[in-house]
Amino acid sequence: MDELFDRLFPICRSITGPGLRESLEILGEYLPLEHFGQPTGSPVFDWQIPKEWRIRDAWVKGPDGSKIIDFKDSNLHVLNYSVPIDRRMSLDELKKHLFTIPHMPEAIPYVTSYYKERWGFCLPHRLMEQLEEGTYHAYIDSDHVDGELNFAHSILPGESDREILISTYICHPSMANNELSGPVTAAFLYRRLASWPRRRFTYRFVFVPETIGSITYLHRFGAKLKESLYSGLVLTCLGGLEHPLSYKTSRRGSSPVDQVVEHLFRFQSLQGNIRSFTPINGSDERQYCSPGFNLPVGQMSRMVYNCYPGYHNSCDTKEVMTIEALQQSVDELESVLKALELNGFYVNQRPFGEVKLDKHDLYPDLNFPLNGIYSSNNVADNRMQLDRILMLLNYCDGCYSLLEIAEKCNCSLTDLEPIINMLIDKQLLKGPFLEPRNEMMT
Amino acid sequence: MDELFDRLFPICRSITGPGLRESLEILGEYLPLEHFGQPTGSPVFDWQIPKEWRIRDAWVKGPDGSKIIDFKDSNLHVLNYSVPIDRRMSLDELKKHLFTIPHMPEAIPYVTSYYKERWGFCLPHRLMEQLEEGTYHAYIDSDHVDGELNFAHSILPGESDREILISTYICHPSMANNELSGPVTAAFLYRRLASWPRRRFTYRFVFVPETIGSITYLHRFGAKLKESLYSGLVLTCLGGLEHPLSYKTSRRGSSPVDQVVEHLFRFQSLQGNIRSFTPINGSDERQYCSPGFNLPVGQMSRMVYNCYPGYHNSCDTKEVMTIEALQQSVDELESVLKALELNGFYVNQRPFGEVKLDKHDLYPDLNFPLNGIYSSNNVADNRMQLDRILMLLNYCDGCYSLLEIAEKCNCSLTDLEPIINMLIDKQLLKGPFLEPRNEMMT
Amino acid sequence: MDELFDRLFPICRSITGPGLRESLEILGEYLPLEHFGQPTGSPVFDWQIPKEWRIRDAWVKGPDGSKIIDFKDSNLHVLNYSVPIDRRMSLDELKKHLFTIPHMPEAIPYVTSYYKERWGFCLPHRLMEQLEEGTYHAYIDSDHVDGELNFAHSILPGESDREILISTYICHPSMANNELSGPVTAAFLYRRLASWPRRRFTYRFVFVPETIGSITYLHRFGAKLKESLYSGLVLTCLGGLEHPLSYKTSRRGSSPVDQVVEHLFRFQSLQGNIRSFTPINGSDERQYCSPGFNLPVGQMSRMVYNCYPGYHNSCDTKEVMTIEALQQSVDELESVLKALELNGFYVNQRPFGEVKLDKHDLYPDLNFPLNGIYSSNNVADNRMQLDRILMLLNYCDGCYSLLEIAEKCNCSLTDLEPIINMLIDKQLLKGPFLEPRNEMMT
Repeated sequence: MDELFDRLFPICRSITGPGLRESLEILGEYLPLEHFGQPTGSPVFDWQIPKEWRIRDAWVKGPDGSKIIDFKDSNLHVLNYSVPIDRRMSLDELKKHLFTIPHMPEAIPYVTSYYKERWGFCLPHRLMEQLEEGTYHAYIDSDHVDGELNFAHSILPGESDREILISTYICHPSMANNELSGPVTAAFLYRRLASWPRRRFTYRFVFVPETIGSITYLHRFGAKLKESLYSGLVLTCLGGLEHPLSYKTSRRGSSPVDQVVEHLFRFQSLQGNIRSFTPINGSDERQYCSPGFNLPVGQMSRMVYNCYPGYHNSCDTKEVMTIEALQQSVDELESVLKALELNGFYVNQRPFGEVKLDKHDLYPDLNFPLNGIYSSNNVADNRMQLDRILMLLNYCDGCYSLLEIAEKCNCSLTDLEPIINMLIDKQLLKGPFLEPRNEMMT
Repeated sequence: MDELFDRLFPICRSITGPGLRESLEILGEYLPLEHFGQPTGSPVFDWQIPKEWRIRDAWVKGPDGSKIIDFKDSNLHVLNYSVPIDRRMSLDELKKHLFTIPHMPEAIPYVTSYYKERWGFCLPHRLMEQLEEGTYHAYIDSDHVDGELNFAHSILPGESDREILISTYICHPSMANNELSGPVTAAFLYRRLASWPRRRFTYRFVFVPETIGSITYLHRFGAKLKESLYSGLVLTCLGGLEHPLSYKTSRRGSSPVDQVVEHLFRFQSLQGNIRSFTPINGSDERQYCSPGFNLPVGQMSRMVYNCYPGYHNSCDTKEVMTIEALQQSVDELESVLKALELNGFYVNQRPFGEVKLDKHDLYPDLNFPLNGIYSSNNVADNRMQLDRILMLLNYCDGCYSLLEIAEKCNCSLTDLEPIINMLIDKQLLKGPFLEPRNEMMT
Repeated sequence: MDELFDRLFPICRSITGPGLRESLEILGEYLPLEHFGQPTGSPVFDWQIPKEWRIRDAWVKGPDGSKIIDFKDSNLHVLNYSVPIDRRMSLDELKKHLFTIPHMPEAIPYVTSYYKERWGFCLPHRLMEQLEEGTYHAYIDSDHVDGELNFAHSILPGESDREILISTYICHPSMANNELSGPVTAAFLYRRLASWPRRRFTYRFVFVPETIGSITYLHRFGAKLKESLYSGLVLTCLGGLEHPLSYKTSRRGSSPVDQVVEHLFRFQSLQGNIRSFTPINGSDERQYCSPGFNLPVGQMSRMVYNCYPGYHNSCDTKEVMTIEALQQSVDELESVLKALELNGFYVNQRPFGEVKLDKHDLYPDLNFPLNGIYSSNNVADNRMQLDRILMLLNYCDGCYSLLEIAEKCNCSLTDLEPIINMLIDKQLLKGPFLEPRNEMMT
């Protein structure tokens, strides 16, 4: 992870252009990626693919001819998508093109102007305050050319065609939590899932520039997603070890991943909190959950955008994010996906009357209040296990989901995994099925 | 309003007869009315139209020959629907036919006996206590004749055939809040609605004697109402300026007008409180909401029947009611109807991915946390407006009503009116539709 | 009841065998029973009918040759379903076959080993502690033979083929609350119901050995029950006069009997508390509510199993249970069944507009606030009765159940019985119907 992060961090990415392409190529060394490009000018729903932005150099020289701002020091210094400039001007004129954050005087802000032609520089407020009157030379060597918008995905097949989407964005320059935490976590989550002995679902990992990229992805694959998507997650801002997970529900509010994450948080299988869906802010779930698609996709985060000082400025560093936090995010996302795989509808194969538990070695063979002392068969007098067996056999009717049964047992569905496996081994249960099966019920 | 009130007040109305007819004729000078009559003796569901009651004079003379009670002083003095009498009798016998309110010694009660033959006089308790032994002469010059039960309505057409019913009663003698507040408010509400540049619904204004009149109206127009009624209101007791509105829900409890009024009260677009439907007391909503019709009709009131001292007696005066209160009632009822017109289901015309807001001049063209200072296009950095635009575009899917979306925005639906209009102008929204439209949703 | 109890108490019952047969024969003298037998070895779902257990004598003689434990003193002394033994042994060896309750040193526990071959004796802990070293002689004269599992039922016909099930078990030796309270209450409840002038439902009374017996009953009659059962109750532990009723809901949680019992408890027509369904413990409702049947059957109890000191030991006596408690249980169960008979969907026969109450002698004929004094017709000014008449006529639309209407009236449905009967007599209502009737509603 460290290595992948360090290779991606210095690249000047934007929503199009060489930085984006190079980043996707590097990611492709960590998981098998299929690459796509959408040509400049093509319409994608209400949007249009912009020209590619290519930036080679940018600086401002002061009255004494020395470089006081240099793109080579930090790619945040240049207004993202700046048009070229090469002109001398007064400090007053220059200042119309300078962006700072007065309340964070050391930070370089991250500013973009994708859809209106502008040029500009971003710098620490303290530096701007030190500038003296005189003639300044602003230089940006950039151009906007016809090209394409790049994105990539990787399909990890499973037993079913029903898919789980993992989508993350890659389009910001040198920022850690709000840019690289998503794709780095996604790449290593892919590797984790690829190592599972079996996968019930097919997993679709998507890497796109934010907003325009996910809109473009939906333009190309939206119909397929509508047909096959079971649930999904947008990954963003997954750094910050001291922060618990933070989950934003899908627009539906009760899609499978919404239910499972809320359940795992409630029964403290995972630490985390829930945010309700809103179209007002967020990441690409806003596109997946636009009304024409309304896909069952939530968003998982940790140190949430807007809620930490480094958001959209140069303080968003690897030290603040930490690689350890990404490792924990991979572990916790794997838990969520395992729970999604485990959940579903199970069917008791001996549904008429109770199962004769002792016959299946599931019950002490002596009926006496002080069983633990006297029972001679091999079944430990484990009352909690016995209670869960009885609950599962009674409620696994194809109508209650495992999650609902777990809640009746007052435990997390992952707590039921060993008993589910034991009952499947003994051919007393079948499942999980994705949809309820009503055949048994009156 | 003052003039209409003063012309109607002195008339001795009952559920049939010349007083009712004269009152409807006067109302017909203020709004165009179509008049109807149902002949005496006709069956209307479980009821039968009674004979018309005609009253010319009524008095009681004391032992000294002077009139101690005189119908000409107040038409409340005579038991409504009294049979004729012309007989001398002792005080004891007379007292069997006198009605008073002991705890309100100055008030003349309002008493009726429509369906059993009786004669009687109503008077202040203090006056009755002063009566001395002797021979009294009771005289009532009335008769009951075959005639008809009169009622009237006015249809104010709109763009749709779906109707909103405004129903009020006219059948009590000289009382203000519990008689004239309804028809006077209804007449002026009609004029207000007639001045609107467009009406989405057709409005049906109905003036009937209470109970038997609305039953007769339903006998004649009930099938039509079942077919075309969208929602409706019974108006009664709309005086009392210091009283907020008081709304009694329809039997359904969640008909459009129930939802809208409850919403406007909750978000304090209007001051008011809610009463749940009950068939135990009330006005003509009891008939509209009888189980065979179960129409979506609530009842709007202010100084509610039974809850003020003047209810059904001579203290129910113009001074207690006030014309100002009726004016406020017209204003507030207009707000309710405007909200009903605005509500419905809207559909985003660019539902796939987010709308590109800047393209439609709905978004600042620079993405920077301190936008307000730097943005150069004409869109004010009005965060609340932007949030509402995003909420409307996301949730206007034809399935959420505007009322539901407003509640997600934590505002009244009337607060959304300017944004709805702007988005319709920009062809981003279509609507409102009366019914959900599912075509877009998976 | 006393007599029936005293005849049944001494018999050594088990899940099969002569004691069970004799007990069913005796019950057959109190209500007409149809007897059934399922042969040893037949499979019943996941179970198999065991051999019959026949026990003739059992004792332990001490080193001095005297009987220190004797089956003739209490049939609890022998481990139920013991294999035969006739052997001398040391105290240490004997102790492996002795069962006591250390914390209840005077009680003989009730222990069974139906499905694994064992022999053993149960005795007071104090007695076991007094045993001295030496040679003991253990003797059990029992055998296990091919025979049958016996059970019985009685069908009490009603106007409808829809059935209510009353099921209770008979399979324990000499215990009162946890054995005989059920069948004795059921037998006398049958006689109570047989004396009703009319029964809306058909009643099915079932007497089975617990668990294996109800599974066998379902194997034979389950399809019939799935088709015709409206609701049902398992009766168990109905003694303990100081204990209120305790109801365990059916698995469905909202079957008719669940709703009615919860309602009667809530409106204090009966004292009692509710337990939610669980498959973890309980009685034969676990079989009736197994997922393949999921029948609408709850369980009624009073001094609940597991919650009193005498549970499954010799302290479960007639004195603790009391015959008075069983009489009260019969009364209270009759109330529940009467409420089930009364509940249902009623339909107003004059649903258009209000019913003209005075025409049907349901209303004072004078409209005046002080009616009680003045009204001359025969209708008492009983405001509560009038309110309930209005509520019933409005809400009896075939869609609201009587129970729901009672809750709107804030009273128990049994409080509405006289008014329901009066309105049926006046041909204003029809019903009750078991299913909602929608024809009237828009």
